[in-house]
Amino acid sequence: MTTVRRRGGADLTETIKRTALELGQEVGYAKLSIEAIAARAGVGKHTIYRRWPSKGALLLDSLLSLGESALDYPDTGDVVADLRKQIYDAVDLLAAEPLSPLFRTLVGEAQHDHDLAAALNERFITPQSDKTAARLEAARAQGQLSPDFDLDLAMAILSGPLYFRLLITQEPLTHAYVDRILDALFAGMGPRP
Amino acid sequence: MTTVRRRGGADLTETIKRTALELGQEVGYAKLSIEAIAARAGVGKHTIYRRWPSKGALLLDSLLSLGESALDYPDTGDVVADLRKQIYDAVDLLAAEPLSPLFRTLVGEAQHDHDLAAALNERFITPQSDKTAARLEAARAQGQLSPDFDLDLAMAILSGPLYFRLLITQEPLTHAYVDRILDALFAGMGPRP
Repeated sequence: MTTVRRRGGADLTETIKRTALELGQEVGYAKLSIEAIAARAGVGKHTIYRRWPSKGALLLDSLLSLGESALDYPDTGDVVADLRKQIYDAVDLLAAEPLSPLFRTLVGEAQHDHDLAAALNERFITPQSDKTAARLEAARAQGQLSPDFDLDLAMAILSGPLYFRLLITQEPLTHAYVDRILDALFAGMGPRP
Repeated sequence: MTTVRRRGGADLTETIKRTALELGQEVGYAKLSIEAIAARAGVGKHTIYRRWPSKGALLLDSLLSLGESALDYPDTGDVVADLRKQIYDAVDLLAAEPLSPLFRTLVGEAQHDHDLAAALNERFITPQSDKTAARLEAARAQGQLSPDFDLDLAMAILSGPLYFRLLITQEPLTHAYVDRILDALFAGMGPRP
């Protein structure tokens, strides 16, 4: 407990998140417990429960704090290049080894855990949708996007095909696949006028 | 056992599938067991295991056999109308009450059950992708689709945004939402030339 007392709150939070990811990768989501994370991090389990209501919330936080920068959009003036860069980073973080199995099972758990589904949306999807819409809105103002494109759908249109591969076909999410999706979405399916 | 002996194989298969869906809706995926399905259907559990390797495989089959017709594409000559009709039917079956919670948790389970993920792809996604690509290929041949549209991506592009709402944001999948997605995908995101 000496170690714990010496560590500051932010430090301790980081230690717990890092431990949750380490242990999660070792044993998988289903077998991961708050007790085991607490034991390895050298803290009491109430220290964890004071910060996170569940292991799902803790793991989600841990994954996202690895990717603070991956979740921001650059603005170089070229919207397709900027989307590509952001999507590569997000895919490399959440949809590639070593973290993708943990992220996939977390989303799987959200199918019957309402609190986790809500946390996933509040902590990740909604902020990310807002950033995506803002970046696309800037592009639309500069004529780089169809003037009537439905921005509220942007997150679903851009991310949906990638989640489809991650969660449904479970094939590897390569940069080449991201490129093909972006090409198809920007060209549109309809015939050229 | 008299009842069982009198029923033919196809009949029995239908009874088991119907029972699996009924019980699945009552208790949810996690609490559903082959034993309970067998008991309610009035058969031995080996009768079920001879037909399906797991409850996931049985449930998937049960859901899909409700929707044989919903999974076929009409061909009226108007590709967008035909896609819309097929997607409405599929969404009404799998992404609306009463079956959507069961379908969502089934996909959730596939995140850590490799056999179930494989069954989902073999029994549902791959046949559906093939039908989608065939319908779009006919449309492309008639000039209703961009000549360079990447048909191998069709299933991910069309279904991905819908799975995103079903599995991630978990908002209701309405026909109006399907319409907005189809409009956006056919128009494309890029600026009009």
